[in-house]
Amino acid sequence: MAISKRTDLALEARELLQESAEAITEIDGVIAREYKRHGCPVTRVEILSEAGEQAMGKPVGTYITVETQGLMRHEEDAFKRTVRAIADELSPLLPVGGMYGVLLAGLGNRDITPDAIGPLAMQNSVVTRHLVDKMPEEFGHMRPVAAISPGVLGTTGMESAELIQGAIQHVRPGAAIIIDALTSRRLSRLCSTVQIADSGIVPGSGVGNARAALNQKTLGVPVISIGVPTVVDAVTLMADLTEQAGQPEPDWSEIAKFSGGLMVTPKEIDTQVETLARVIGYAVSIALHPEMDADDVQGFLG
Amino acid sequence: MAISKRTDLALEARELLQESAEAITEIDGVIAREYKRHGCPVTRVEILSEAGEQAMGKPVGTYITVETQGLMRHEEDAFKRTVRAIADELSPLLPVGGMYGVLLAGLGNRDITPDAIGPLAMQNSVVTRHLVDKMPEEFGHMRPVAAISPGVLGTTGMESAELIQGAIQHVRPGAAIIIDALTSRRLSRLCSTVQIADSGIVPGSGVGNARAALNQKTLGVPVISIGVPTVVDAVTLMADLTEQAGQPEPDWSEIAKFSGGLMVTPKEIDTQVETLARVIGYAVSIALHPEMDADDVQGFLG
Amino acid sequence: MAISKRTDLALEARELLQESAEAITEIDGVIAREYKRHGCPVTRVEILSEAGEQAMGKPVGTYITVETQGLMRHEEDAFKRTVRAIADELSPLLPVGGMYGVLLAGLGNRDITPDAIGPLAMQNSVVTRHLVDKMPEEFGHMRPVAAISPGVLGTTGMESAELIQGAIQHVRPGAAIIIDALTSRRLSRLCSTVQIADSGIVPGSGVGNARAALNQKTLGVPVISIGVPTVVDAVTLMADLTEQAGQPEPDWSEIAKFSGGLMVTPKEIDTQVETLARVIGYAVSIALHPEMDADDVQGFLG
Amino acid sequence: MAISKRTDLALEARELLQESAEAITEIDGVIAREYKRHGCPVTRVEILSEAGEQAMGKPVGTYITVETQGLMRHEEDAFKRTVRAIADELSPLLPVGGMYGVLLAGLGNRDITPDAIGPLAMQNSVVTRHLVDKMPEEFGHMRPVAAISPGVLGTTGMESAELIQGAIQHVRPGAAIIIDALTSRRLSRLCSTVQIADSGIVPGSGVGNARAALNQKTLGVPVISIGVPTVVDAVTLMADLTEQAGQPEPDWSEIAKFSGGLMVTPKEIDTQVETLARVIGYAVSIALHPEMDADDVQGFLG
Repeated sequence: MAISKRTDLALEARELLQESAEAITEIDGVIAREYKRHGCPVTRVEILSEAGEQAMGKPVGTYITVETQGLMRHEEDAFKRTVRAIADELSPLLPVGGMYGVLLAGLGNRDITPDAIGPLAMQNSVVTRHLVDKMPEEFGHMRPVAAISPGVLGTTGMESAELIQGAIQHVRPGAAIIIDALTSRRLSRLCSTVQIADSGIVPGSGVGNARAALNQKTLGVPVISIGVPTVVDAVTLMADLTEQAGQPEPDWSEIAKFSGGLMVTPKEIDTQVETLARVIGYAVSIALHPEMDADDVQGFLG
Repeated sequence: MAISKRTDLALEARELLQESAEAITEIDGVIAREYKRHGCPVTRVEILSEAGEQAMGKPVGTYITVETQGLMRHEEDAFKRTVRAIADELSPLLPVGGMYGVLLAGLGNRDITPDAIGPLAMQNSVVTRHLVDKMPEEFGHMRPVAAISPGVLGTTGMESAELIQGAIQHVRPGAAIIIDALTSRRLSRLCSTVQIADSGIVPGSGVGNARAALNQKTLGVPVISIGVPTVVDAVTLMADLTEQAGQPEPDWSEIAKFSGGLMVTPKEIDTQVETLARVIGYAVSIALHPEMDADDVQGFLG
Repeated sequence: MAISKRTDLALEARELLQESAEAITEIDGVIAREYKRHGCPVTRVEILSEAGEQAMGKPVGTYITVETQGLMRHEEDAFKRTVRAIADELSPLLPVGGMYGVLLAGLGNRDITPDAIGPLAMQNSVVTRHLVDKMPEEFGHMRPVAAISPGVLGTTGMESAELIQGAIQHVRPGAAIIIDALTSRRLSRLCSTVQIADSGIVPGSGVGNARAALNQKTLGVPVISIGVPTVVDAVTLMADLTEQAGQPEPDWSEIAKFSGGLMVTPKEIDTQVETLARVIGYAVSIALHPEMDADDVQGFLG
Repeated sequence: MAISKRTDLALEARELLQESAEAITEIDGVIAREYKRHGCPVTRVEILSEAGEQAMGKPVGTYITVETQGLMRHEEDAFKRTVRAIADELSPLLPVGGMYGVLLAGLGNRDITPDAIGPLAMQNSVVTRHLVDKMPEEFGHMRPVAAISPGVLGTTGMESAELIQGAIQHVRPGAAIIIDALTSRRLSRLCSTVQIADSGIVPGSGVGNARAALNQKTLGVPVISIGVPTVVDAVTLMADLTEQAGQPEPDWSEIAKFSGGLMVTPKEIDTQVETLARVIGYAVSIALHPEMDADDVQGFLG
């Protein structure tokens, strides 16, 4: 949380992930670039070494942030451009080597809107494993893709990891793509960025209940995560606005005692989550089935 | 907004509405009481004169706040007790004099969760006008009640007031009860109080778009409003927490420039709005049909 | 109902509306044509005189049926083509003469899926009355369009006609477009045709509760109706299948005594109603705002 | 399907399951009883031997049908009585022997209303495995219950059986309870009976896509199934009505060629499925946590 950002160097460095690419590239073992893809601003940070790991407070890997504000501003062609941008950033993170199967997992609670982005993205993804299997003449050329929405501990009594591991044992995929809601550090990122990484994910961090990590080590296959910040901690929200306004900062940790860990969400969250889930589902589908475009995905989903 | 509470005396006075009953009763032309009803804390403020109006910044009338935290804490019998408490507070505000008809209006946008409480309360209300009319032998003893969800300007192109006036011309009720989401001044009230008043309502104030007032003057019949705070302005949220923590306060108006009028809502808003809409629908139904209890309402709604 | 189609000549003639254009054109005072529009089969019947009225059992007017099976078959570009086809059939039915306002009304109960098509179409329509009014510099060139979802008698206690009349008094439109679910006579039309007419509509006929007609006489403005068959009477369903199979027909009226008026709907009704509501909302928007295409409508709706 | 009931003896016998208890008990190796439980009519059939299996066309086991029409008729206390009746019928089918864990599985597609009863029942069930595990001092006295909604092959690419097996490997329960929608043979049972059995279930049979059986043999633990008929085959519907009306029967197999396997559902399916899912979730919770009553379940679910 940004609260302690003045004292916790690791955290401060981590924050840089969202600052200038130039500044980041100064750090040893880290390379960052900023560019636009189909009109969407993209920041790509690669952590290359242990030195970079320590400086950034994150494991070696690639971290990509695609900005999606064009969607909320209803810019021309924003939907198709954003889908394309995410698909194009996602593709190179997939393991090379042909038509191995992929397991998609949409984490989160479908009945709490800001936590529903994972399950909703599953509904918008092209799933083919059963078709490849049962109708090989028609679908044998497609990559077999399966999708799971494991729900949340509070309503299933099971960790997402347990169900995903079970699915992986049956599906035997070559990679897993895991979609989850995130807690944003900054108001400005709420429902307006998509964060892609190839170093795994800690499910539930989007709603304040961190669980066991899901990564190559725990799942046995390469894991690509796609996260969307949908909630912000109330105190972090305050710190962020106060800093932007150049106002003197109070002792946030004192204030945090009164917020009760309140997570907040914008009031238009329903539409925003629905749109982003569709964008992600389409982007994942196009990355996994390069012969499809957005219209094909829509046709397939019906 | 609490932002200017140090300079704007009227506003400061208005804030008192949520402070101690004793303090309020000191004000000329105002009487306040605090008590419990079926276990729910109730604050009742009566503004009796022009002096009271000026001190409180609100028109002459009765303002009742029923606290509903027991619901979220899942206290024993919380649902039935809260329904009963609201019904019992509401009943004495109804005009005396028999079985006149009543028009219910549920304001707000059903597709934005924190703004959906009005339309959802309509779905949970016992509506009888058509039954009284068409099956008088069976239902002739009941009060004729009609219900309208006029939607919001952005999706209908019409002011709620226009549609409600149209309905009143056809239904010719003896009173109107209008349910709406409110913007809370304080985090602690979010989805945890129900505010009842007999002086009318300004629709849309719950989501930052104030419209023409709905009151006896504009609608031609006595108007009782029932409001539930479901969103809080981000800067007000900050000011509230900072004050509770006893921290030095920055210049909130400067910070407000960076919040873009952001309204925030807790992440569990879906369940909370659904529960409160049901409580209000049941309470209104019991107040209007005193022969019914909560089980009868449930049976009627099916 | 097709039950008595062997004895009731008027009904039999009415059935012809869905039979061959050639056969219909033989009837005095009636002209029928069949053609394709953007790939969708269209049947257009014009009843021109009292003779035609009597033969067809429907008032003078234009009756257009657009077939939408391409949508369910996921044909290429089916969504855009169907939107375009309906918009192009609808446009010539609008009164000539410039930028008069239009009131849209989506009849039916949003909480019963097969009856929700009207309210859902409203959510997918471009509404501009408030924008034209309040931001004339930006939106003054657009046609002012308002939209109402009056609900159903059982949950509002008011006839749709009462609320629509109230809205018309405030909006003073040049025409009304009313969308409703219909009871299909034939299984084959269920969720696969859109029926457009300029002679008014009897609301609620889609779910077995006919109400007062909504037409130019009762509303005071030209009325265009758009209906989608979403339910079928169980006995009609049986009669239809038995006839198609060339099987001997039992006495359907005897069987009807045991069906309890059961209306049935296909199990995939959720998706079908959602898709058709979107098609109709977009088509109406394009017909009323000819400067827009489907992508503009999507951008506007957000 | 009842279509061939005159020729297929096994099927005819199976039909007896829904006929008189007396008639059934005449069959060798089968015992049947009819009684009321909390006001709900119950039929209980026990198939005891191979002879009984062959006569009834179902494996050895107990088959219980609880009639729930009281719910739709809004009879007094119908909700609580039906919950109690199902819980009381379910309890004796659970393996004896203390506080072993239970896995609940809600089969079906949450996005197709008549197929959503399984996933919706999961939302209404008390799940405790994580609480027992992480807060043993507070919850250690409760039975550990986990719940899974595995989705359907068409949207996950995985058989329900694969996901349930994976969950069983992690949860290691003493029994599984599986809830699913069924295809009704008879209109009169649609959304008005709950069928409980201890011999396993074939998922997807409710919507016409039979899958591999889920039973003690395939899952390795005792399996109790709870099914609700929510759809009816169009031709079966016709045959049923024709028989009730005493009309001559056509060759249904000829007619079936024209129905395209159409499954139909009543138009009020939304409410009916929601109510029955709540009844089942509450009943399962009370059977598994005998210290709870319906109000406790509601309090727990929040």
